[in-house]
Amino acid sequence: MPSSTTEVSVAVPLLPSLRRTINSTSQVAIVGSNLCPIESLDYEIEENDFFKQDWRARSKVQIFQYVFMKWLLCFFIGIIVSLIGFTNNLAVENLAGVKFVITSNMMLAGRFSMGFLVFSLTNLVLTLFASAVTSFVAPAAAGSGIPEVKAYLNGVDAPEIFSLRTLFVKIIGNISGVSASLLIGKAGPMVHTGACVASILSQGGSKRYGLTWRWLRFFNNDRDRRDLVTCGSAAGIAASFRAPVGGVLFALEEMSSWWRSALLWRIFFSTAVVAIVLRALIDVCLSGKCGLFGKGGLIMFDVYSENASYHLGDVLPVLLLGVVGGILGSFYNFLLDKVLRAYNYIYKKGVAWKILLACTISIFTSCLLFGLPFLAQCQPCPAGASEECPTVGRSGNFKKYQCPPGHYNDLASLIFNTNDDAIKNLFSKNTDFEFHYLSVLVFFFTCFFLSIFSYGIVAPAGLFVPVIVTGASYGRCVGMLLGSNTNLNHGLFAVLGAASFLGGSMRMTVSLCVILLELTNNLLLLPMMMLVLLISKTVADAFNSNIYNLIMKIKGFPYLYNHAEPYMRQLTVSDVVTGPLQVLSGIEKIETIVHILKTTNHNGFPVVDGPPFTAAPVLYGLILRAHILTLLKKRVFLSSPVACDSDTLAQFTANEFAKKGSGRGDKIEDVELSEEELNMYLDVHPFSNASPYTVVETMSLAKALFLFREVGLRHLLVIPKISNRPPVVGILTRHDFMPEHILGLHPSLSRSKWKRLRIRLPFLS
Amino acid sequence: MPSSTTEVSVAVPLLPSLRRTINSTSQVAIVGSNLCPIESLDYEIEENDFFKQDWRARSKVQIFQYVFMKWLLCFFIGIIVSLIGFTNNLAVENLAGVKFVITSNMMLAGRFSMGFLVFSLTNLVLTLFASAVTSFVAPAAAGSGIPEVKAYLNGVDAPEIFSLRTLFVKIIGNISGVSASLLIGKAGPMVHTGACVASILSQGGSKRYGLTWRWLRFFNNDRDRRDLVTCGSAAGIAASFRAPVGGVLFALEEMSSWWRSALLWRIFFSTAVVAIVLRALIDVCLSGKCGLFGKGGLIMFDVYSENASYHLGDVLPVLLLGVVGGILGSFYNFLLDKVLRAYNYIYKKGVAWKILLACTISIFTSCLLFGLPFLAQCQPCPAGASEECPTVGRSGNFKKYQCPPGHYNDLASLIFNTNDDAIKNLFSKNTDFEFHYLSVLVFFFTCFFLSIFSYGIVAPAGLFVPVIVTGASYGRCVGMLLGSNTNLNHGLFAVLGAASFLGGSMRMTVSLCVILLELTNNLLLLPMMMLVLLISKTVADAFNSNIYNLIMKIKGFPYLYNHAEPYMRQLTVSDVVTGPLQVLSGIEKIETIVHILKTTNHNGFPVVDGPPFTAAPVLYGLILRAHILTLLKKRVFLSSPVACDSDTLAQFTANEFAKKGSGRGDKIEDVELSEEELNMYLDVHPFSNASPYTVVETMSLAKALFLFREVGLRHLLVIPKISNRPPVVGILTRHDFMPEHILGLHPSLSRSKWKRLRIRLPFLS
Repeated sequence: MPSSTTEVSVAVPLLPSLRRTINSTSQVAIVGSNLCPIESLDYEIEENDFFKQDWRARSKVQIFQYVFMKWLLCFFIGIIVSLIGFTNNLAVENLAGVKFVITSNMMLAGRFSMGFLVFSLTNLVLTLFASAVTSFVAPAAAGSGIPEVKAYLNGVDAPEIFSLRTLFVKIIGNISGVSASLLIGKAGPMVHTGACVASILSQGGSKRYGLTWRWLRFFNNDRDRRDLVTCGSAAGIAASFRAPVGGVLFALEEMSSWWRSALLWRIFFSTAVVAIVLRALIDVCLSGKCGLFGKGGLIMFDVYSENASYHLGDVLPVLLLGVVGGILGSFYNFLLDKVLRAYNYIYKKGVAWKILLACTISIFTSCLLFGLPFLAQCQPCPAGASEECPTVGRSGNFKKYQCPPGHYNDLASLIFNTNDDAIKNLFSKNTDFEFHYLSVLVFFFTCFFLSIFSYGIVAPAGLFVPVIVTGASYGRCVGMLLGSNTNLNHGLFAVLGAASFLGGSMRMTVSLCVILLELTNNLLLLPMMMLVLLISKTVADAFNSNIYNLIMKIKGFPYLYNHAEPYMRQLTVSDVVTGPLQVLSGIEKIETIVHILKTTNHNGFPVVDGPPFTAAPVLYGLILRAHILTLLKKRVFLSSPVACDSDTLAQFTANEFAKKGSGRGDKIEDVELSEEELNMYLDVHPFSNASPYTVVETMSLAKALFLFREVGLRHLLVIPKISNRPPVVGILTRHDFMPEHILGLHPSLSRSKWKRLRIRLPFLS
Repeated sequence: MPSSTTEVSVAVPLLPSLRRTINSTSQVAIVGSNLCPIESLDYEIEENDFFKQDWRARSKVQIFQYVFMKWLLCFFIGIIVSLIGFTNNLAVENLAGVKFVITSNMMLAGRFSMGFLVFSLTNLVLTLFASAVTSFVAPAAAGSGIPEVKAYLNGVDAPEIFSLRTLFVKIIGNISGVSASLLIGKAGPMVHTGACVASILSQGGSKRYGLTWRWLRFFNNDRDRRDLVTCGSAAGIAASFRAPVGGVLFALEEMSSWWRSALLWRIFFSTAVVAIVLRALIDVCLSGKCGLFGKGGLIMFDVYSENASYHLGDVLPVLLLGVVGGILGSFYNFLLDKVLRAYNYIYKKGVAWKILLACTISIFTSCLLFGLPFLAQCQPCPAGASEECPTVGRSGNFKKYQCPPGHYNDLASLIFNTNDDAIKNLFSKNTDFEFHYLSVLVFFFTCFFLSIFSYGIVAPAGLFVPVIVTGASYGRCVGMLLGSNTNLNHGLFAVLGAASFLGGSMRMTVSLCVILLELTNNLLLLPMMMLVLLISKTVADAFNSNIYNLIMKIKGFPYLYNHAEPYMRQLTVSDVVTGPLQVLSGIEKIETIVHILKTTNHNGFPVVDGPPFTAAPVLYGLILRAHILTLLKKRVFLSSPVACDSDTLAQFTANEFAKKGSGRGDKIEDVELSEEELNMYLDVHPFSNASPYTVVETMSLAKALFLFREVGLRHLLVIPKISNRPPVVGILTRHDFMPEHILGLHPSLSRSKWKRLRIRLPFLS
């Protein structure tokens, strides 16, 4: 498959083997769990004669229709994502709930080994299903999907990530994975699901399965799709945490690379729809129609306390919490990075290994979850407990486990439970004496390591909930350590601990703050929460990068950051452009075009008019490979090299040049032309982008990157400084800005010193 | 004073008078209350030989110092802004409180006319002080300042808006204006105050008053200052509403034109500092050390109710509330626009008129506030009131006014009170029967019209609080109308009413939502709030634009929106570029340079090397007027036209080329040169930006605007399509993208149809 990042790859055979490896790394990336070729998206405003005519021919009605459709799609995204989110939660709560009830009943009857068998077998079967369906049906659905969506919103087009198949596998794979008591989350997969829904809607359905609606197909360019995918990812977070404002901010802070005020409004609309639909569905569940889902309704930990009084004296322990949380978070990222690299190495051996690894993790998890509570001491039931203690015959907070009547197993209440319930228990305000110190400590270590080993399995798996549960247990530990030296209760410490660990691992600020506030419904905590997040992010940034950026790096996505590395100031654009450049004439022989398309895999070609048509060679514009292929397939050829007339243009419609969905592009190999046709001519002028962005060859790479990133380009033409040279001297693509490429060309640059400094310390920018 | 937006203005004498008026309108704007010339800011990365050497010479220590200083300044901004915000509130509460207590005591003693005299005279004196100090000392401090700061963040440099004088007047003018019971707000002036503090800190103090600190002067370019000013404006909102997250979002959604993830983090840091400092100060006030400021502590309306239960049935009235709120909000904008235009007409007559108008408004306001409560019926005191009823001898909610003992005047409780207390009363949850329907209605109409007439006075005056109080009374009216047909209490209706009116007037979404949530501390209202904001914004957008955009239009700021008007797609860049272009040679005679600088007021000149130095004319780069002036002042001239050597460069330091604070630029008239010197030469090569951004002349204006806006340019060079023409054919500046300019050049464009459609319906973008 052609790659957009390969304007330099024709030069590869001329270069030493070292450089070839460097160049090829950026052209493929691990999407989900499979290695795939990567293309770029087209965000540039194409300005050619043909599109200009199309624009002028558009009526006001069509424009209104376009706007209306965009809002309608945002509405649909909100509705569909909230329904999926609700179903997800309902399914998980009921599946996992039934499993826990059956196991508990067996243990109540003293049949411990039978209980273990049922528990571990159910988990194994569910895990097997999740990993098999992911491996065989849609490998792109593996993992959280946030790195893939984030890269997409940066302009990286990974095939299959938004297909209907991926969507389907993402939903059912995640339900079965989470129900299998694996320590994986639902939020990341929900973000990917939301993005999938948005992308499929914006393409007007899935062509492969014949599920298309013509009236939905209004968005034929990558800019509109990008907007909708951003809405979808925000709706995903909104649906998984019931945090509509948090969803908007998450999309803004972590996901999107470009942002407009109008987009903010549309995202807000989508998440508002999610909030209202969820609110209505919870009304339904409150009347007890949702089985074990109960009246809690999605994860929402109401820890409001009327007088959350804290004073300046509480700042010191909270600072400490933030610092340690930051160190733990960056250590978590470090370990996860290593584990994922090891897993990728294993996965290269074949699909069987992927499934085998998932099963191993499942069995190991079952053993830990079932075995560890036996180590804990039984606690006597508290006198004024609001719930039945110990709970019998249903999922509840006071697990009896192996304990005598009137006692409960506090570790089982945390570990032998769904993650959501564990978080609820940890965040609760009046449970300062419910958990023993050692139990919380054991729980913390279990979560910390289990979540690191579980994330990499080949199944849809998120990171948010594992990080929250780990952080909450860490915070609770700190709260217990401080004991009566603080005014804050242990529940608040758990919330702040979750914040510090999230800040240390995910490195967001405003969005995490708002998501946690919406989860806990306690605005008075705000100043403390902000402090903890700032401290932990700052501390963690000194060690390594954001977890999603690390994963994107492992996966090999050519992500463009919006700050330039210092060495980019030392280089000019001409230092990284490699040749030879393939150029088309304005009126070109078909044979030449076909030859160029077959021998290169560039996706854009400069169009240069030269003698005899003009006095000196003049840059006319840039034409995309996809558009040339459309022209070749239509076979509107000229028998002599003359400009085509308006009749020729009238044979085309704008839809033929519309951007196809990802992975659906035409290939030159599919176009068959006769000998006679090969000797004819094609006038590419009307279809070329006549005003491409250009930079002069002496511009520094840093400045060119700024332009490339801000304007969202795929191809940037480099023009010469002096006028007696050819009118174009090269093309810059995304790949040319990648550190691997640049430092491969210029190994003398002090890579070690500068690069590490920058990557480690994002607050330098 | 030279203007950056006048690359076309040399052409003015050649054009008909119609065009001259069009061109000149964008070069001056109303800053505060005075007409001032407007310049643009330089955000482009300057790349010349000189700066490159400077960059390479920078040590790691200097870079760390730079980063550390940036964070330190964010910290200082947070501290200073929160202290100012606290002082503001303290001063207003105490000044206004003493006034109300004295007046109430006189009324209690039956001396009504004496009470009125004291009340109205105090108000008049305070208003006189506010408007006099604004008119004579710092006219730039008039109004809310949000439009000025918003324009600054878009790249518009209005003189004096960030001077120390303006800051001082803004603070004391706003305190006295609000204390004078004028219906004006504190939030807008706080935003401007925050921006001022940030700008003064970033310049290292105020040069004019000799208050400069060398160690603070690290930020010599407009990019860094822009970042800090954004932090300052966020801190302003955070301090005035105690809404740190709301402040971040306000800066992001309404104020900033460019946004980066790193900036978000820094803003978050500043507002976190504000939140923590305010929290600590309120701890102090809770112990009763703040006089009449009381224990409430800043405006914070805690309307939390444990079971804010609402169901699908409540959606319909809320929808209605949103629709009517949107219509009212846009009507408010419409009236305010007309009133401000009328005021501007009056203000042209002189300073005396400005003060006279302010005094008239003050007297009128005093009469209304004092007189209207006499129309209301006295209400019997409720049985279980939490407060003393009627309150005697202090500021309280149950005003006795003219009523017999055991009764209170409900209209006086709203109208004869500070705005903050009125909002608190309206938002309260258990006051459904405290206010009579007619009283609230009278209050609504009073606020609606009084705030429209009060905003335009020449004193620091905000819009947020008036809009909230008007909206809250509107919402309460609707709640009373619905009576028992709804589950929501009247306090919640007041909150939603405020949301709808804010949405209808200010047209923000996420930021208003979060600010209101933080103000009311009730997260359960979130879905309703989102719904109301979306509806009211959508409805209002059908009629006119955002209030701040309307004010910017009246004031004449050349603000660049990030969407292109449809007619811009029909025009190419060469259609709007007007000549003649002034070009410098790379090595130019001093005489020529001085002549060009004296006869034009351009701020950037293309540098073109031509024969005999090169074979054909070649574009070398772009040099700024400010840099040429620095060179001329230094007098490093060459006796013959040869390139200067590195010794010459060594005579300069980067600081000499640093951007001066606004309004402090050198002038060509100040440079005196001898006859001998005029015959010498200057080599501008090392000081020219050698890689300016260029576009080809056939690019559509819409696409050029996109580049100009996204990259944040001041000058955009237009290069020819064909190679045998001069290497530059024009320069685009901010001014060339203004609709007035474009439609002046091309009156045939269907302005009426398209433009109004776009401006009215921002959701089209």
